[in-house]
Amino acid sequence: MVTLSDRIASLHVSPIRRVTALFAEASQKKELISFGGGGPSLPPPPEVSEEIIRKVREDPQGSTAYTGTRGFLELRKLIAEDWMKHDNEVYKPESEIILTDGATEAIFCAFLSIFNKNDEVVLTNPTYLGYLEAFQLAGARAKWLPVKVEDGYQPSLEVLKSVITKRTKAVVLLSPDNPTGRIIREDFIKGLLDLAKDYDFWVVNDSTYRDIVFDKPQPKISSLPGAHERVLSVGSFSKEASVPGLRLGYALGPSEMIDGIEKVKQYTTLAPNILSQYAVLPFLRNGVKERYLRDYVLPIYKKRRDVMEEAIRKYLPEAGIVRPDGAFYFFVDLRHYLQAMDRDEQDLCNRLLTRKGVIVIPGSYFGDKGVGHVRFTFVSEPEDRIRLGVQRIGEYVFSYTFSMD
Amino acid sequence: MVTLSDRIASLHVSPIRRVTALFAEASQKKELISFGGGGPSLPPPPEVSEEIIRKVREDPQGSTAYTGTRGFLELRKLIAEDWMKHDNEVYKPESEIILTDGATEAIFCAFLSIFNKNDEVVLTNPTYLGYLEAFQLAGARAKWLPVKVEDGYQPSLEVLKSVITKRTKAVVLLSPDNPTGRIIREDFIKGLLDLAKDYDFWVVNDSTYRDIVFDKPQPKISSLPGAHERVLSVGSFSKEASVPGLRLGYALGPSEMIDGIEKVKQYTTLAPNILSQYAVLPFLRNGVKERYLRDYVLPIYKKRRDVMEEAIRKYLPEAGIVRPDGAFYFFVDLRHYLQAMDRDEQDLCNRLLTRKGVIVIPGSYFGDKGVGHVRFTFVSEPEDRIRLGVQRIGEYVFSYTFSMD
Repeated sequence: MVTLSDRIASLHVSPIRRVTALFAEASQKKELISFGGGGPSLPPPPEVSEEIIRKVREDPQGSTAYTGTRGFLELRKLIAEDWMKHDNEVYKPESEIILTDGATEAIFCAFLSIFNKNDEVVLTNPTYLGYLEAFQLAGARAKWLPVKVEDGYQPSLEVLKSVITKRTKAVVLLSPDNPTGRIIREDFIKGLLDLAKDYDFWVVNDSTYRDIVFDKPQPKISSLPGAHERVLSVGSFSKEASVPGLRLGYALGPSEMIDGIEKVKQYTTLAPNILSQYAVLPFLRNGVKERYLRDYVLPIYKKRRDVMEEAIRKYLPEAGIVRPDGAFYFFVDLRHYLQAMDRDEQDLCNRLLTRKGVIVIPGSYFGDKGVGHVRFTFVSEPEDRIRLGVQRIGEYVFSYTFSMD
Repeated sequence: MVTLSDRIASLHVSPIRRVTALFAEASQKKELISFGGGGPSLPPPPEVSEEIIRKVREDPQGSTAYTGTRGFLELRKLIAEDWMKHDNEVYKPESEIILTDGATEAIFCAFLSIFNKNDEVVLTNPTYLGYLEAFQLAGARAKWLPVKVEDGYQPSLEVLKSVITKRTKAVVLLSPDNPTGRIIREDFIKGLLDLAKDYDFWVVNDSTYRDIVFDKPQPKISSLPGAHERVLSVGSFSKEASVPGLRLGYALGPSEMIDGIEKVKQYTTLAPNILSQYAVLPFLRNGVKERYLRDYVLPIYKKRRDVMEEAIRKYLPEAGIVRPDGAFYFFVDLRHYLQAMDRDEQDLCNRLLTRKGVIVIPGSYFGDKGVGHVRFTFVSEPEDRIRLGVQRIGEYVFSYTFSMD
């Protein structure tokens, strides 16, 4: 057997992707209740589907041809307008925006553009699984910024200061956050940017869930003084337009960084998918995005969040939770129950799947500070099944602790 | 300004992608004759467009959802059947096939899976632009295998033996070839595989143009004894289904290698585009692919090839050419004319664009052995415009050499 590279041995297949793969292949198993995945659960706006149909029908060849590596200029202009509306910051569509295969590719190309071997990247712990090993591929090393349920999963500026060194090349900011749903505090952002100026590092501002917010708006980092030249923002249409399978995201930032991302993107995917680009053009026009989110998506997701919170408080009264201000998830501290059960959360999740048909994700998948926690996605099931799923979890935990007594 | 990584400084933006970007943005400029890009120029089979429309109309949500990182099992089964038909070799759809964002991503993930720092990769020179720096991102170093017009652009097994060392970790085989159109000789493939066994290296078998062949079939490397465990094949639907903008390709090979590619793919793009997967399902069913290529695409491309060959022989009688057996390109040796003009081929290409409105690609873009050559794509224009374009090139070359005399 010919050998593989050393880097492959240090990478793992995401356990969540395995669950998604199983699910995608076996979607007939309707008896399962899934709080597992991170996908939206509503159809995209009809304008999106209609545009795909129209374009393919009218121009089968033109709708399947190559585009430039950065994608349609027209779409980049609309993204620039969207950021102007949201963050009040001007990005040049020609030089400061590039379309990517989801935020995933934007992050990957950015990491390869930023890090030399042994540079340091600061990430919260727990954090999004998709970062956990990506920085390794660029040769970087992680410094962890722990977040706790007691602090509302807000990172501490003091702790951040203590982990920043001369080797710090980037801090990754994800807000609203996966897996905790917290929106970052404005004073943290200001302090982070001050540090970025002092120590000359990049802020990678992952805005995947930027528009999935329920009670308060997302603070704007891009428009702070000095932000433009050291903040790389990445975005995605997966969550806001409910089209994760179309794999379309983007990066905005200083032109040198976008040039770097383009250079890497030539080798990762060459060019963005043309149909996906056509699909999201109408999403960003004529207020479609704003109406879709305000009148349809956000009220449903918010209601589901509230139903899940109520169910958790009812069926798992000793669980520690922070009401998520955005994104799709509760990050539930189950240490009280796990201790009583003498089990770890991986074990519990396996048993909930096999005994109760409920899919939840072990918190340790998101970093070692997630031990004792479990991630519940609240957007993927309707309200009655959210109640039923949490009830089943509660029943299992109580029957187990009771039967062990 | 915060700095970027060293690797970015050593990467360049592909000049062809720049041309493609200009073209995609300014497709109204119909007066230009393009022999430049590498995209197919015919619409995909109606079954492909109809399936996209049907799927999006019937299930807007299901047609835009995430799939597993490896893609639909059903599609992998059809790819396995296609390779069984073509190469008479069995690949397991579950463990030995993964869908990727074009062959581009398959190559990239394979390179990261294969190479440690300072491992060597053998590539022909000239070769496909997309390899030229991709191996650097994995830390590998290139050893070049020159090919010449006088040898029909066939690489020499003797020269291959002389560049193989203990550090050789892979040899990349592209057949039919970009930029030369040559189909590799069977004795070279056998010799290459013997060396791969002796020296224990990978063969990366890029089959992007596998089915774009005109006179003779592509020799089958995968089914040779000992091939299965050391050959990684990559394929693409871009050329064979005329859907480059749908960005769908795949890798087939030993399960350990496919596991490695999956690990990297989690971070490059997470999952393949779902609509693209639906689109190509009918392409691989009920003989659609075979009929589309045999009855529609190949006769048109072959005729265009023959027309271009005739035009080159007529208008550029001193050019050195090899009739391409497959793919989309003539790699034209213009050293005779360039010497008379005292120009390099980059200069000539610039002048052909600005003075004659004809787009061709400098051969040096494909490696230093391409100096003095120019790539002409023969599939992208209809026959009369092929004649007209080559005629304009001939007129320019002759008027220039005449006016200089």
